[in-house]
Amino acid sequence: MKTILTGDRPTGHLHLGHYVGSLKNRVELQNEDKYNMYVMIADAQALTDNFDNPKKVRENVLNVALDYLSVGIDPKKVNIFIQSEVSELTELTFYYMNLVTLSRLERNPTVKNEIKQKGFEKSIPVGFLTYPVSQTADITAFKANLIPVGNDQLPMIEQANEIVSSFNRIYNKEVLVKSEALLPKNELSQRLPGLDGKAKMSKSLGNCIYLCDNSEDVYKKVMSMYTDPDHIKVDDPGKVDGNVVFMYLDVFSNDELIKKYSDFNSLQEMKEKYTQGGLGDVVIKKVLYNILEEVLSPIREKRKYYEENIDKVKEILKEGTINARKVASNTLKEVKEAIGINYFE
Amino acid sequence: MKTILTGDRPTGHLHLGHYVGSLKNRVELQNEDKYNMYVMIADAQALTDNFDNPKKVRENVLNVALDYLSVGIDPKKVNIFIQSEVSELTELTFYYMNLVTLSRLERNPTVKNEIKQKGFEKSIPVGFLTYPVSQTADITAFKANLIPVGNDQLPMIEQANEIVSSFNRIYNKEVLVKSEALLPKNELSQRLPGLDGKAKMSKSLGNCIYLCDNSEDVYKKVMSMYTDPDHIKVDDPGKVDGNVVFMYLDVFSNDELIKKYSDFNSLQEMKEKYTQGGLGDVVIKKVLYNILEEVLSPIREKRKYYEENIDKVKEILKEGTINARKVASNTLKEVKEAIGINYFE
Repeated sequence: MKTILTGDRPTGHLHLGHYVGSLKNRVELQNEDKYNMYVMIADAQALTDNFDNPKKVRENVLNVALDYLSVGIDPKKVNIFIQSEVSELTELTFYYMNLVTLSRLERNPTVKNEIKQKGFEKSIPVGFLTYPVSQTADITAFKANLIPVGNDQLPMIEQANEIVSSFNRIYNKEVLVKSEALLPKNELSQRLPGLDGKAKMSKSLGNCIYLCDNSEDVYKKVMSMYTDPDHIKVDDPGKVDGNVVFMYLDVFSNDELIKKYSDFNSLQEMKEKYTQGGLGDVVIKKVLYNILEEVLSPIREKRKYYEENIDKVKEILKEGTINARKVASNTLKEVKEAIGINYFE
Repeated sequence: MKTILTGDRPTGHLHLGHYVGSLKNRVELQNEDKYNMYVMIADAQALTDNFDNPKKVRENVLNVALDYLSVGIDPKKVNIFIQSEVSELTELTFYYMNLVTLSRLERNPTVKNEIKQKGFEKSIPVGFLTYPVSQTADITAFKANLIPVGNDQLPMIEQANEIVSSFNRIYNKEVLVKSEALLPKNELSQRLPGLDGKAKMSKSLGNCIYLCDNSEDVYKKVMSMYTDPDHIKVDDPGKVDGNVVFMYLDVFSNDELIKKYSDFNSLQEMKEKYTQGGLGDVVIKKVLYNILEEVLSPIREKRKYYEENIDKVKEILKEGTINARKVASNTLKEVKEAIGINYFE
């Protein structure tokens, strides 16, 4: 049985971008019943660039857990756990740091890019610079084979596998396991733009629909969506390309839903009408709103249940963490044995 | 009661340089009965630049423990423990790494110097670069107030105190305690040169007298000591300055011992005779040999006892480690509470 490790940094509520980009996929993988799956709430990693705002991280641990359960991640099938509660991960990180050079870390394209984005330059916190090592600890602790990531995260897997190779070679034992990326089947779903048509949904840009938004919020947000700025009167011909409403419909609709909520038989038909002219933005937005509500209503309902039973959520996290810790602790034992720092055994 | 943290990297047997530079001092401090003292066998730190030779580190853990017990460090008064067995130290390191920038670490004069010595440049292992953060974890885990170090180690204490300040400020609680250097009273004892007159005793230079050397070895080593290359015949005037035998006598002898093992009443008298001429190198070396044997015989005897009772040594390490872990675990609890990553309490 292959093992999957995935997770999120708890720095905010999860949104539709997370849903189509990863959460939906996790539920599908879980329901295939052929993987051993760990979902990590990566609070320790979130602290590497939010160390001065730990409250944000702490609060969002429970939010993210609620998001997970709301979308249907099933704690009976999946281990949901809190990273910082698995101390073994920091210990693995510590010993792996000996196997990576500074220049190698600085060459990591993902880290390089993030350093630039965050304007860190040389004032980068060491914890942030070394987070690929910490990720290696996460991956290897569970001997994960498959890591669901986007293309931009491939350098992380490469770094992890380098450390795995070094470790097994230097300590002369096949203790650690290499992993590979589980890339998204659907390229489309990776590109859900923000309401404003910006590249990605992002909390800081305020362009997200959150999984916990109520109907009213979703309605308002859909109504504010970027469409075609030249489509002024209903009769004007409209552009579908770059039109956020249609981009969302591409991801969330199917013919059945289109028929249910519009006068059209397919999205294609609807797009054609819009292109010719005679289909208003409010109309297409209402269609999208209704279709999103089909996705979000059951999520909202489940969330309500768990919000009213928050002790259950905590219990789930606790159990998942205990299970995760057992496995990580076993790997750490093997790691320390291989290095030879197991004096009292 | 003030707390002292000290220790050694287990990368070889300890030698006379360690004895006069730190071990002797530890026994004195222990016997003042007014400190809470932790002596750490820093195997995890040793691995940061010996990660590819873990056997060396592992083997020397027991050697160093034997050295400690042989010189009279009393496990009833002092906690001797193995660093890698206190997992909490790596977890503290992990969170402290967020509070230090890369440029700050690269500016550390001690690290800078070591990087140059070891020829690391940019290929420096990250674990080695970050060892000042790991040292901060060691110091703060035990809330140590006093760290016996030489002047060259002052930047380490400075770095530790910076992290302490940042932590307490950012997490808004006086959890961590600042420490200060306990500098050697006796500057002389810090400068015991190698047999060849080189700056310091160093395993790699093969110029050491080890605490575990037998009498024969010590005799041979003393006989090979660098004296005055121009002092060829006994009657030639000899130089005392830079003469290793006299440098050792400066450290180890007193008038009583000089009287006991030579025809002189004081070291001063002996030096004068040597300077005038008429005192042979073999004679002064025999005096030194006898005086060193006064120091080394009881150490050797104690070592013999512990070597024959190696289980006792392991028991001492185990107990010391359990005690150390209790304290470190308490500090870690406070640290995680202050950050707010204590979800299950």
